[in-house]
Amino acid sequence: MSLPDVVTLSPTPDEYAYTFGGRAPLVTVRPGTIVELTTEDCFGGRVRGIGDLPSEVCEFPYLNPVTGPIAVAGAEPGDTLAVHFVEIAPARDWGISSTFPHFGALTATHSTAMLHAPLEERVWVYELDRAAGTCRFRARAGDFTADLPLDPMHGTVGVAPAGGETLMSITPGAHGGNLDTPEMRAGATAYFRVNVPGGLLAVGDGHARQGEGEVCGTAVETAMRTTVVVDLVKGGGPAWPRLEDDRYLISTGSARPLEDAFRISQHDLVGWTGELLGLDTLDAYQLVSQAGLAPAANVCDTNYTMAAKLPKSLLGRARAYDGLHDRLRATAAAYLRHR
Amino acid sequence: MSLPDVVTLSPTPDEYAYTFGGRAPLVTVRPGTIVELTTEDCFGGRVRGIGDLPSEVCEFPYLNPVTGPIAVAGAEPGDTLAVHFVEIAPARDWGISSTFPHFGALTATHSTAMLHAPLEERVWVYELDRAAGTCRFRARAGDFTADLPLDPMHGTVGVAPAGGETLMSITPGAHGGNLDTPEMRAGATAYFRVNVPGGLLAVGDGHARQGEGEVCGTAVETAMRTTVVVDLVKGGGPAWPRLEDDRYLISTGSARPLEDAFRISQHDLVGWTGELLGLDTLDAYQLVSQAGLAPAANVCDTNYTMAAKLPKSLLGRARAYDGLHDRLRATAAAYLRHR
Amino acid sequence: MSLPDVVTLSPTPDEYAYTFGGRAPLVTVRPGTIVELTTEDCFGGRVRGIGDLPSEVCEFPYLNPVTGPIAVAGAEPGDTLAVHFVEIAPARDWGISSTFPHFGALTATHSTAMLHAPLEERVWVYELDRAAGTCRFRARAGDFTADLPLDPMHGTVGVAPAGGETLMSITPGAHGGNLDTPEMRAGATAYFRVNVPGGLLAVGDGHARQGEGEVCGTAVETAMRTTVVVDLVKGGGPAWPRLEDDRYLISTGSARPLEDAFRISQHDLVGWTGELLGLDTLDAYQLVSQAGLAPAANVCDTNYTMAAKLPKSLLGRARAYDGLHDRLRATAAAYLRHR
Amino acid sequence: MSLPDVVTLSPTPDEYAYTFGGRAPLVTVRPGTIVELTTEDCFGGRVRGIGDLPSEVCEFPYLNPVTGPIAVAGAEPGDTLAVHFVEIAPARDWGISSTFPHFGALTATHSTAMLHAPLEERVWVYELDRAAGTCRFRARAGDFTADLPLDPMHGTVGVAPAGGETLMSITPGAHGGNLDTPEMRAGATAYFRVNVPGGLLAVGDGHARQGEGEVCGTAVETAMRTTVVVDLVKGGGPAWPRLEDDRYLISTGSARPLEDAFRISQHDLVGWTGELLGLDTLDAYQLVSQAGLAPAANVCDTNYTMAAKLPKSLLGRARAYDGLHDRLRATAAAYLRHR
Repeated sequence: MSLPDVVTLSPTPDEYAYTFGGRAPLVTVRPGTIVELTTEDCFGGRVRGIGDLPSEVCEFPYLNPVTGPIAVAGAEPGDTLAVHFVEIAPARDWGISSTFPHFGALTATHSTAMLHAPLEERVWVYELDRAAGTCRFRARAGDFTADLPLDPMHGTVGVAPAGGETLMSITPGAHGGNLDTPEMRAGATAYFRVNVPGGLLAVGDGHARQGEGEVCGTAVETAMRTTVVVDLVKGGGPAWPRLEDDRYLISTGSARPLEDAFRISQHDLVGWTGELLGLDTLDAYQLVSQAGLAPAANVCDTNYTMAAKLPKSLLGRARAYDGLHDRLRATAAAYLRHR
Repeated sequence: MSLPDVVTLSPTPDEYAYTFGGRAPLVTVRPGTIVELTTEDCFGGRVRGIGDLPSEVCEFPYLNPVTGPIAVAGAEPGDTLAVHFVEIAPARDWGISSTFPHFGALTATHSTAMLHAPLEERVWVYELDRAAGTCRFRARAGDFTADLPLDPMHGTVGVAPAGGETLMSITPGAHGGNLDTPEMRAGATAYFRVNVPGGLLAVGDGHARQGEGEVCGTAVETAMRTTVVVDLVKGGGPAWPRLEDDRYLISTGSARPLEDAFRISQHDLVGWTGELLGLDTLDAYQLVSQAGLAPAANVCDTNYTMAAKLPKSLLGRARAYDGLHDRLRATAAAYLRHR
Repeated sequence: MSLPDVVTLSPTPDEYAYTFGGRAPLVTVRPGTIVELTTEDCFGGRVRGIGDLPSEVCEFPYLNPVTGPIAVAGAEPGDTLAVHFVEIAPARDWGISSTFPHFGALTATHSTAMLHAPLEERVWVYELDRAAGTCRFRARAGDFTADLPLDPMHGTVGVAPAGGETLMSITPGAHGGNLDTPEMRAGATAYFRVNVPGGLLAVGDGHARQGEGEVCGTAVETAMRTTVVVDLVKGGGPAWPRLEDDRYLISTGSARPLEDAFRISQHDLVGWTGELLGLDTLDAYQLVSQAGLAPAANVCDTNYTMAAKLPKSLLGRARAYDGLHDRLRATAAAYLRHR
Repeated sequence: MSLPDVVTLSPTPDEYAYTFGGRAPLVTVRPGTIVELTTEDCFGGRVRGIGDLPSEVCEFPYLNPVTGPIAVAGAEPGDTLAVHFVEIAPARDWGISSTFPHFGALTATHSTAMLHAPLEERVWVYELDRAAGTCRFRARAGDFTADLPLDPMHGTVGVAPAGGETLMSITPGAHGGNLDTPEMRAGATAYFRVNVPGGLLAVGDGHARQGEGEVCGTAVETAMRTTVVVDLVKGGGPAWPRLEDDRYLISTGSARPLEDAFRISQHDLVGWTGELLGLDTLDAYQLVSQAGLAPAANVCDTNYTMAAKLPKSLLGRARAYDGLHDRLRATAAAYLRHR
């Protein structure tokens, strides 16, 4: 095994992308390359205190900057682009969350259109303590505080969409994008179908942590220093983004209404399980029905996202993508030992 | 009043567009220009008989070709691009409808994902009799036939989307696109918010007629010879596409679930009504609630579309867009008299 | 033909029902009986002016009183209970509409739960002019008025539910109930599946008129003097309520999300059309797709309701329920001539 | 502390209930009573092997029998009925799962009405090994087997509904009912708002385990021997069912579309959290957004159910219902020690 390439990608402010698709790659890497990259937070770093209201300091459509795209040499439509998260480290000792006018799960929005005035726009600043592994919530009204576990992840990871589309980075879909699932943490491998030559991976929207559903519309948003291994499997591109960690196979679905996101994710997991275990469709449906988990990812974005999880303990000797996740784990471990 | 420009736009096969956004204009016109254009059907003309199954003869993403884009000189983001349909005439004496695997309202789809095999893919050929004003349905199983009124319209009319997005022409949204509403017939004026310089109007997907909801996923699809007047209002761009005919103000909303499409359309109509009549929000809400109509447009596309209609008889002397519809009607009448 | 029985049913205040199911019949009639009945408005008559806020003067669950139940002799589960509306006449010269806290299409509700405070609760009093055929809207803020066509109908018509259920009268479903469709006007025949012996028809919630969707949550609510013919077809009970008038077959569906209400109604209409015309399922699907109408009924109640309409001009000699609607029309005409 | 009453409730076949509401209590107990009860499976025990197709051996509406109702002395509308699950033990060494025509998440249903024929109806028999703590899945096609952890729970727990309604036991809602959440396991306390005198608790639908979402429509269904403590808190009845275990506060919401179930559950959890921690609404919204979990319960029943969970580690010294859960845990421990 030769040492993998290590590439660094740290965009200047005007190099950030705000869409998936429609952009030339910032860099092209060989399959197996380790990419050390930096990401800005979803506010473009403009919200730095409780007085910085996002609707005032941010400017549509310059929201949710992503780092990339990264082209993968040899990636062709129908292939599987794999990205393994080696490390996701907050680049600041603070993170931001906020409400935003007409955005979130418990508010009227532009599509769940109602006659209500927006809820109050309020900003929370979280202190991140990487040593302690916590992020501190501080109530804005009253003096309540609570330390929540730091659990860094990326809300937005995806590739260029199919059909010649260019989609805003805030939209999750079959191309990935703003899935906003806490499963996208270090130790996980994400799989995307390649839709255009090179695949054109981009990553952004770091969260120091988020709850399932991202109810208020934002997580604990922060800039990240992130290391990924980018790899390629010829063919086999999944219809919808998949993830794998040491314990679970995870299918995602992004759609509205939320039951369609659920259906997509479960449908994909049924197919994936059946294929790996040699089960027919109804047997796989049955097994997933009894053994699966189904947490919400986000219920606030332009599409909602559900995750469908199956314990890998059920797989016996079967391995997804021929054991790629384990190999990427090994690559990641070697990288972390030797850097 | 000077005579309006008349421009002809008849794309060659490789000039058709399959997206809104991401394309350079085929032509740039001055506000007030009459454009005589031709459109191909949603199958790109490849389905010509009952043996031509769309899933076999059509190739993704080359579906639903649109004619354009047409840039309007002086159109800037926030403006209102108006397009008045002078005439929509079937260019053939036949039209096609079909089911399509996993597409339609009464079938599992890729987002309402289920374990069912697709319904049968079946093609119907309609005979169009322009003199009689009918299109003839002919059952595929059995010998039942019925003549339905010819009611030509365009399923797909829109402009380049906001946010730097490029969307497939099969998607309806705030930019218009594949609204698939039978209200988009000759005599109607459609209003779109301009999102990019020039607006970039495109038109396609002619239907000899369609039912409300476009239940099976396709209408009576046919190529069209269509004449429009393209005009511009500075400012005032509506958040969602609007239409106006001699009898109704019509707001549209495109989203999932269907109640959100309904909410968007009603919310817009409440705002529009309130503005035109000087009513506060709740009074406008009340008036629309008692006087409005709410037909489905499509319940099959990637977003669903609802229309919200208010009789113009309620408007008294108030006129939308300062009477533009009436002026465009006059222009159309003059054109039809003199050609 | 013998003269039909004529029965009068005018409940005292404490005889009103607030549920479908769970009540003994007020009266039992033979099939073909004409019933002259009175109904109270959805507020129980307690809102009489703009100062009577429904949330203050009405008391849950004493909302939406219905007149009945009326048992039909011989009706057994699986049969079809037909009710033809001969006349629906406002019993007052005023009607009421209002917003209601957390109820309506453009507001957060108890199930579309959000953090917004309720919209303002506001009452409108409409003057009903039966001679002129109008109801007058009078804005609460400002001096705008408008005369809307009087178009009396019943929002709530149904039978006892299946499965031993008792449902509040505000809920629409397979048993009928609070369908809130403007199609339920004089001249229409409604068909319900009988679920319990006698069927147990009840009628209420008169509207001087309503817009499609009943957007704000209430129509122009008023007490009614209504005459119906109640009839029975052995067997053939439809899965969901159907209506028929002189021009249309109308299927209804009541569910959430709204696309499921749409699907139910279209699915039923496809089956009904196929059965009447001898078409296979796909041919009926196709015909309904091109010829059908799909107006919203209500998008505010505990289930939403859509109507699916097919022009009876397509039926040739076929007649629903063996021509029952025409016979009931004749009965109604005879009654109106001779009373 | 006096010893609690212990009551045994083991219905005869014709004593089972199939609705919430509309039934006289089988027994009345004092608050604090321990009830040892037995429940039949959702098939009424009629499916005993792979040849027993549910649609053939079961008869609507005699599905999903529940044990009860149990009246609680002194319970009045607005109170909180608490039920703590001491033990849930499979009463058989086998459990059943199956598909059912037009029921489940990945199939057309009666409300998500489509033109597809039903999926195959297939029965799976699981071997339950209480000693090993497993239930064995055995593929019907092929010889794959897998042991899944036994995790017994009740799918159906609830009280009589509000508004005079009687609802089939298969429906989840504000009264509880068929929530089908795996959180309803031994060690959990469920809280319901009392709607009628006595509250009228009923319990059924034991699952040896279920996946989140109950995708195929049924879990590993089995009869149970279950012990609960039934208690009462005067006042404070929650709008929607809540649960509490040693680690989490859990709010539930049951509605369609699924995002409304999500909204309800999150809305309730925001209110509950705010109340316990003295936070204003937006601060509670923020805390839940970052700290909460949101697993699907069921996405197959007549309403869908979501759970919203908050770690109790955030509560500091605050205790829900004044520490009732801890007291019931102590009662349960004493019972288990001494029986």
